[in-house]
Amino acid sequence: MESLIYSADKQQPSSPLTNTRSKKKEPSKNPNPKLAGGFVLVHAGAGYHSESKAKEYKLVCKRACQRAVDQLKAGALAVEAVAAALIELEDSPFTNAGMGSNLNLSGEIECDASIMDGKSLHYGAVGAISGIKNPVLVANRLLSEAQRGKLSAGRIPPCFLVGRGAREWAVSHGISPCPSEKMATKFSLSAYKRNKRKMELAEKMDTGHNQRKKRRQSNENENGAGCLDTVGAVVVDLEGNVAAAVSSGGLAMKHPGRVGQAAHYGCGCWAENGCNMNPYSTAVSTSGCGEHLIRTMLARECSAAMQSEDAHNALLEAMQNKFISSPFLANEDRVLGGVIVLRCCRCLEAPPSQNLQGLLVEFLWSHTTESMCVGYMSAQDSKAKTHISRLPPGTRPGQCLAIEGGVCRLMSVVE
Amino acid sequence: MESLIYSADKQQPSSPLTNTRSKKKEPSKNPNPKLAGGFVLVHAGAGYHSESKAKEYKLVCKRACQRAVDQLKAGALAVEAVAAALIELEDSPFTNAGMGSNLNLSGEIECDASIMDGKSLHYGAVGAISGIKNPVLVANRLLSEAQRGKLSAGRIPPCFLVGRGAREWAVSHGISPCPSEKMATKFSLSAYKRNKRKMELAEKMDTGHNQRKKRRQSNENENGAGCLDTVGAVVVDLEGNVAAAVSSGGLAMKHPGRVGQAAHYGCGCWAENGCNMNPYSTAVSTSGCGEHLIRTMLARECSAAMQSEDAHNALLEAMQNKFISSPFLANEDRVLGGVIVLRCCRCLEAPPSQNLQGLLVEFLWSHTTESMCVGYMSAQDSKAKTHISRLPPGTRPGQCLAIEGGVCRLMSVVE
Repeated sequence: MESLIYSADKQQPSSPLTNTRSKKKEPSKNPNPKLAGGFVLVHAGAGYHSESKAKEYKLVCKRACQRAVDQLKAGALAVEAVAAALIELEDSPFTNAGMGSNLNLSGEIECDASIMDGKSLHYGAVGAISGIKNPVLVANRLLSEAQRGKLSAGRIPPCFLVGRGAREWAVSHGISPCPSEKMATKFSLSAYKRNKRKMELAEKMDTGHNQRKKRRQSNENENGAGCLDTVGAVVVDLEGNVAAAVSSGGLAMKHPGRVGQAAHYGCGCWAENGCNMNPYSTAVSTSGCGEHLIRTMLARECSAAMQSEDAHNALLEAMQNKFISSPFLANEDRVLGGVIVLRCCRCLEAPPSQNLQGLLVEFLWSHTTESMCVGYMSAQDSKAKTHISRLPPGTRPGQCLAIEGGVCRLMSVVE
Repeated sequence: MESLIYSADKQQPSSPLTNTRSKKKEPSKNPNPKLAGGFVLVHAGAGYHSESKAKEYKLVCKRACQRAVDQLKAGALAVEAVAAALIELEDSPFTNAGMGSNLNLSGEIECDASIMDGKSLHYGAVGAISGIKNPVLVANRLLSEAQRGKLSAGRIPPCFLVGRGAREWAVSHGISPCPSEKMATKFSLSAYKRNKRKMELAEKMDTGHNQRKKRRQSNENENGAGCLDTVGAVVVDLEGNVAAAVSSGGLAMKHPGRVGQAAHYGCGCWAENGCNMNPYSTAVSTSGCGEHLIRTMLARECSAAMQSEDAHNALLEAMQNKFISSPFLANEDRVLGGVIVLRCCRCLEAPPSQNLQGLLVEFLWSHTTESMCVGYMSAQDSKAKTHISRLPPGTRPGQCLAIEGGVCRLMSVVE
């Protein structure tokens, strides 16, 4: 398998941050208000982002970063900030998550989402949920309910709910239902009609004796990479807690009830604060073809890989060995996916006399799809940076990858 | 955390096998009929198995082993044999899977099941599926459909379906629906009524000002360990292919739509044939508290651990460090679960002149629940051995473990 890699375009480190000027917009959720601040990296999917819509994709990434940073400045922990970013990404009609999601075979919207808190290591997920505008809100609520301990009569709270039961649970926990017809957009409806025609045409061509055989021989992915644009985010707060989340409407024309990687533990997102054995806190969110990301458990694999010294090489090797060349995908002709990754550790560069403590944040993205739209921002930046990363012209998606990233130092005053 | 371990009671190796006398009951699915045979290990759950029902649990394990062995003798590959074992386990009204499953909060049966083929590394799963007598059949059909490649118009086949969509897919693929009322048993209905009364009582007691607080403080697990009895099996065929499967009705009084470990990739079962990097083929199936098994990804962790030289120590360490003392379950007072594990490698003990090739199969089970019911059989045994493993009297479930196992050599004639 040919692979083409272009080297990481290291961004300049952001300027050191102090949080003394941060304004609190909400009551602080952080027990130590001196540690308000942090960094967010979001993606609007690994797939195909047309030049004509590049502006829209970048704008939604910008807004999502801003939402997370607003939360961080108000003292929220990483997990709250990551949920805020996801809500913005879900609310955009341009992304395949929440509002404007792909329609399934029956013309319905069924969404997957999950969130993980690196501090508590708790996790919440919903799969194939309909009629809820922000699936990530339900996943986040499952996470926080599970953190509160057992239910009545010693019952263990669920971490993963699907389908009608998930919607009912959400509504009973104060999350408003949204009529399904309001979640479809002009764009998603016309894509559904177009896909349906294509399917009918493909099936008509596969008539007669060899219908089944022919059907299976078709390797053309008419879904197109444009339909893989799951959204996600990774966040670190100034305490060094990490969190990750992901949300998706799933593959276009999927079978009703199909659950993709966005609701799969270890596959859609992963967040794990550093500990004695793992010096780095890591957070990962994935996007792409759900079945490929599930079978390779890509979020968790990338997170585990990021404990190596060189972040760029670690991610490169993980994408090559655990994804493109994974034995789990040996018979796939195109392995389609992308990840955003963040890792951080305490840095001791500032002399103790300055009463500063710092976090070194390394952030990267990599994809085998034609493009991936990302945005990132620290709590001290005035606005987010956005970027549509593309494979070099002429290279084949699914067989080569792009990898880029940057470094940011977060500094805070210590009493 | 106190832990009590009693040493592995190594079973005597089974007698060497030749498959020359095996009768084929079905057309051979194995391309090399000389390699018909193998070994199966099943469990009827890690939970609590009362002495009064011990006979029934053992009987269903025996039958499940026999079903798998019948398949193996007929030339089936491991994945087909493991599915056959699961069907028998699901059909028993005594197990919490398929027929007789626990009822959820709404008095309905919703099942989870998954299956993994160590040869192709393909996987199929269903979650919260209703009205299907054998959920494992649907999981197995998803696995085999995915192996056949893309659907019309290049759509990627699903590996995980949930809820109503899963049932519809099953029916459209020729799997008969089963009226839900036929899946409930006298036992499961009376357990539901009893659990409902307990819940109502617990919630009545939690009235007034501190209702919510009190509700959360209740740590008594009134589900009882008896309700955790997911079923599963691991198989190796004489070619050395491994497969694993798991099926569960889930926790009693779970919220509708809750999906447990039995439908979670890497959590309910795992099977991986050996390769250059991994000398051992491994297969694992888990049982217990779904949320604990999900968050620790226990099936995959145990599989990975089994690449160490000493199988017994490897499993012991995995159960201690990756489960009982896992940082992912740091705040849980009782970590409840069990695993069956099989690993095998080629053994070269027989002199080449005898035209024999052999597989060394090591099989183990371990649990932190009060008991675990297992059965095992090689294709040359006349009947299965069964065993109800128990923690020593006076020890506390969730904080200590039992571990036992055995060794079996499978020999086959080479031309």
